[in-house]
Amino acid sequence: MCTSVGALRLCHYHRLVVQKQIGTSIYNSLKRMLCSQVSLEVNKLLELKKKLGDEAPKKFTLKTPKGTRDFNPEQMAIREGVFNKIIECFKRHGAETIDTPVFELKETLTGKYGEDSKLIYDLADQGGELLSLRYDLTVPFARYLAMNKVSNIKRYHIAKVYRRDNPAMNRGRFREFYQCDFDIAGQYDQMLPDAECIKIVVEILSSLDIGDFVVKVNHRKLLDGMFAACGVPDDKFRPICSSVDKLDKTFWDDVRSEMVDEKGLDAQSADMIGEYVRYKGGLDLINELLKDEKLKAQKNAIEGLEDLKVLLTYCEAYGVTNRVIFDMSLARGLDYYTGVIYEAILTGQVVQHDNQGEESVGVGSVAGGGRYDGLVGMFDSKGKKVPCVGVSIGIERLFSIMEAKALASEKKIRTNETEVFVIAAQKNMVEERLRLTNTLWAANIKTEQSYKKNTKMLNEFQYCEQAGIPLAVIIGQSEIEAGVVKLKIMGSREEREVPRSNMIEEIRKTLASINQNNTTAAKSES
Amino acid sequence: MCTSVGALRLCHYHRLVVQKQIGTSIYNSLKRMLCSQVSLEVNKLLELKKKLGDEAPKKFTLKTPKGTRDFNPEQMAIREGVFNKIIECFKRHGAETIDTPVFELKETLTGKYGEDSKLIYDLADQGGELLSLRYDLTVPFARYLAMNKVSNIKRYHIAKVYRRDNPAMNRGRFREFYQCDFDIAGQYDQMLPDAECIKIVVEILSSLDIGDFVVKVNHRKLLDGMFAACGVPDDKFRPICSSVDKLDKTFWDDVRSEMVDEKGLDAQSADMIGEYVRYKGGLDLINELLKDEKLKAQKNAIEGLEDLKVLLTYCEAYGVTNRVIFDMSLARGLDYYTGVIYEAILTGQVVQHDNQGEESVGVGSVAGGGRYDGLVGMFDSKGKKVPCVGVSIGIERLFSIMEAKALASEKKIRTNETEVFVIAAQKNMVEERLRLTNTLWAANIKTEQSYKKNTKMLNEFQYCEQAGIPLAVIIGQSEIEAGVVKLKIMGSREEREVPRSNMIEEIRKTLASINQNNTTAAKSES
Repeated sequence: MCTSVGALRLCHYHRLVVQKQIGTSIYNSLKRMLCSQVSLEVNKLLELKKKLGDEAPKKFTLKTPKGTRDFNPEQMAIREGVFNKIIECFKRHGAETIDTPVFELKETLTGKYGEDSKLIYDLADQGGELLSLRYDLTVPFARYLAMNKVSNIKRYHIAKVYRRDNPAMNRGRFREFYQCDFDIAGQYDQMLPDAECIKIVVEILSSLDIGDFVVKVNHRKLLDGMFAACGVPDDKFRPICSSVDKLDKTFWDDVRSEMVDEKGLDAQSADMIGEYVRYKGGLDLINELLKDEKLKAQKNAIEGLEDLKVLLTYCEAYGVTNRVIFDMSLARGLDYYTGVIYEAILTGQVVQHDNQGEESVGVGSVAGGGRYDGLVGMFDSKGKKVPCVGVSIGIERLFSIMEAKALASEKKIRTNETEVFVIAAQKNMVEERLRLTNTLWAANIKTEQSYKKNTKMLNEFQYCEQAGIPLAVIIGQSEIEAGVVKLKIMGSREEREVPRSNMIEEIRKTLASINQNNTTAAKSES
Repeated sequence: MCTSVGALRLCHYHRLVVQKQIGTSIYNSLKRMLCSQVSLEVNKLLELKKKLGDEAPKKFTLKTPKGTRDFNPEQMAIREGVFNKIIECFKRHGAETIDTPVFELKETLTGKYGEDSKLIYDLADQGGELLSLRYDLTVPFARYLAMNKVSNIKRYHIAKVYRRDNPAMNRGRFREFYQCDFDIAGQYDQMLPDAECIKIVVEILSSLDIGDFVVKVNHRKLLDGMFAACGVPDDKFRPICSSVDKLDKTFWDDVRSEMVDEKGLDAQSADMIGEYVRYKGGLDLINELLKDEKLKAQKNAIEGLEDLKVLLTYCEAYGVTNRVIFDMSLARGLDYYTGVIYEAILTGQVVQHDNQGEESVGVGSVAGGGRYDGLVGMFDSKGKKVPCVGVSIGIERLFSIMEAKALASEKKIRTNETEVFVIAAQKNMVEERLRLTNTLWAANIKTEQSYKKNTKMLNEFQYCEQAGIPLAVIIGQSEIEAGVVKLKIMGSREEREVPRSNMIEEIRKTLASINQNNTTAAKSES
C-alpha cells in the first residue's frame, strides 16, 4: 500500500540505490514513518473537507466557453426575425436546403484553409475516427456534392461553424457563430448564377433595416492577369493577393511595404499594382481596362474583364447597378476562389467601439463570396469538377447591429406570440379556466393562463400589459351561468361580453382588428 | 543538422556514454554514415512520392462521421414540416425560445448523467478551457437558469445533442441528433405546469400523422414510497428503479432476476414490486391505491398519488384523458427526476427492423420527461432551487417514421416552393428574361429561370413538371411587342395571355386558384 505514497514513489532501480546508500532497515523505518505521517495529514484534510462540505457551496464556474454566448428570448426574437427574412429571400429564389453534421472527419478539412487551419477545433481522440468541428459550410457542401455525386443544386444552409479565433464579441466576432450560405452548383452559362448571388445579397441587405451598403465586385483572373502585367512572379500571386486583401483595413503604404520588404516584391511592380488597385467604377471602367496595353497582353485579365462586363449587364437587368461597384482592390482571403468575387460593405453611419473604446477602422464586410470551381474536385476520386458560386451572409454582424438598434430604440421586443390570456374572476375556478383555455388551443388561438390556482385579476392584467398580450378572456361564476365570456382589449381597456357559442369567432375578429390598428399605427409612425 | 536524424537522436548523457564506449572518432564516422544513408533513403522515398502524386488519385474517405448523416433536400423538407408543427404547438402555448452553445465547459456536464457520462464527446485540449459537446438540452438549460438568475420561464429549445452511443441509424438512433425540449421553470401550483407538458405531447403527436399513441404517467415519489413499502433498503432505490425502467423492453422474470441476483434484493421484496408494477389505470386505480395498507404508511407514496390524482383531473379538463394512462411500471432512466414522470409510446402498427433483420421489441418511446426540482440548484452557489418540469420530443424517431411513410407513399416531396418559372420562347432573350424575373421577385413571387442563356421550351416545361412548379410565364418577341406575357398552368396545360400592366395581379390570382384546387383535390382524396 505504502508504495503508492508520493513521497516514496521511487522506481525499482532508484529504490535499490537508496536502500544501498542508507541501508535497508533505515530505509524501511523511514518509509513507515513517512507513510504514517502522510496518512495523518490526509485524514486531517479529509475531515476539514467534510466540515467545509456542509457549509461551503459547491464551486462551479458558471459561464459559457470562451467566445460563445447564450441567446436569451429577446435575442432569439431578433435572430428569428433576421433568419425569416433571409430564408424568405432564399425561397423566393427557389433554393432547397440541406444539413450536414457539426463535425467532419479531420481529413475532410485538412488542406482547405491554408494558414487558418490552426483555428480548427479538434475533438478528443476517444477511440474511433478523428473528428473536427466544421470551420465553414463551404467545405462540407463540397464534400456533400462529391460524396453524393450531386452535379447541380441550388441550396441554402444555415448552421453554426466553429473557429478558435481571438473573439471580439462586441464586434460580432465569436468562436461559435452562424453562417448563412447560398450556393449554386452546376455547369451553367457565363455569369448567370453569379449575378443571382449578388442579387440575393442586395435583396437580403435591403430587407434588413441596417442602412446603406455597397457590393464590391472583382475577379480572381483579373487579379492574376494584373499581377502578371505588373511583373509579379507566378509563385508570388497568392501572397501578393493576400497583401491586396488587407487594403480594406490598412493604408496602401503599409500594404506596399509588406509586399516589398516582407514578401520581396520588386518596388516597381508594387507601384504598378498600387496604380491598378485604385480603380473603382462600372462598365465604363471595364471597357477602358479592356483597352489597357499591359492588361490586353494577359489572357487571364481579358477573361476576367469579359466576365465582369457580362456580370454588370445582368446586374443592370436585375436593377441592382446602384448597389454594385467594380473595385480592383477587392481580393478576398480564401485560396479557393477561381472567378468572380464580391463583398458587401455597410456605408451608413455604423460606428462600433472595441473593448478599449477605440473606434474600429472601417465597418467591415457583412456578406461575401465568389466562384470556386475547383473545390468539389478535391474530394472526387477522379478529380471531377463541379463549378460552384455562392455567398455567405455575415449574420452575427447583422445580429449585433439589430440588437444595438433594438436596445437604442427602447421598444419592447415580444418574445412570445401569445394572443389571449385566460383569467378567472373568482377563486376555485381552475378547471373551468383549463377547459376554456383548451377550447382556445383547439381553435389554434395562442393562449396562456396562470400556473397559480387562484390569482388576482389586477396582477393578471399587469402581466398581460408587460408581456404585450393583446386580449384577456375573463370568466366568473356569473359569466358561466349566463353562458358568456368577457373580452378585454388590453390596449384600449374596452370590455364586452360575448356568448360562448360564437366566442371563437368573436375572438378571431377582435384579434384581427387589434392587428389592423397596430399595423396602421406603426405605419403612421414611420 | 544530423543530430535531428532519428537513428542518432540520443540525449546528451547517453551520447557521452556511447562516445566513451566506442571512442569519439568511431562515433563521428558512424554518425556521418547513418546520416548519409538516411538522406539517401529519404530522397528515394520523396522521388517515389512525387511519381505517385502525378498518377494516383488523392485518397479521401468520403463519408460523414460514424453515427451521423447528411440531410438531403427531401429529408429537410420532411424535417421542416415536423419542426413547424412542433414549434406551432410551442408558440400556441406561449413559449419563448433560447439557445446555448453546442459545447459547454466539461465541468458543467460532470456528475449529471451517471453511467452515461462515458458517452460524452470531449474536445481536444488545444490550450484554454476543457470543453465537451452537450449531451442533452436539460443540463445546459439548468446552467442557463442558474447563470442568468432566471427563476421562471416557459421556453422551448430545438437543437442538436451528441452521444458517443452505439448508433442504430435505421431505428433513429444517432450520435448527432435533434432534441426538441419544452420546459416550464418556476415556483407554481401543484400539477398545473405538469399537466400542460402532457397536453403538449398529445397535441404534437396528434398533429403528426404517426398513428395511435398513449402517454404513460407515474411519479418518482410513488415509486420510492412503493420501494419502501416493499422493504427495499434506501440505498437500493435508484438501482432497483433502473431495473424497473427496463420493463418496457424486457420481461418481468429477467428484471426480477437482475434485482435479486445482481443487485442483491430480497426475493420477497422483488415479488411485492412485481405485483405493484402490474398496475395500470386511471383515477379509479389511484383512489384504490390511496387505500392500500402498505402504501398508506409511506408519506412519499401518498404525496405521489395525490399529485397524480390532481394531474389526471387536469388532464380531464384538457380533454386528453383518452391518451393518458397511469402505469406503475414507468420509471425513466435519468436520476434527476423528482416528481411526475411520463413517456409517450406509439401503439400503432409500427414494426421496425434492425440491421440483422430482426423485429425490434416494442416500438419505443417518442417523447418523455418529468419534473426535476433539484437540477438548477446543483449550479447555484447557494444551492437555490428552481422547480422545473419539461418534455423532450424524440424527433429523430418521428423523422424516421415520416421518412419511411414518404418513401412508401411514392408521392413526390417538393423541396423548394417555387411558384413561377420564367421561360423565353426565342434565343437571345436572356436580359428580357432577367428583367421579367426581377419584376416577379420584387412582387414577392417565388420565381426561377434557367441558368442557360438559350433554352428549349420543351425541356423547360419538363423541368417544371418534375419540380412541381405550378405556373410558367413565357415571353417571346411577339409578346414583348404586344406588351403581354403568356401564363401556362402546368397541371391543366391551360394557356392564356395577360397584359404586362396587370401581370402580377393575374399571376397571384392564378396561383391562388391553383392552390385552392389542390387543397380541394387533397381533401376529396383523403
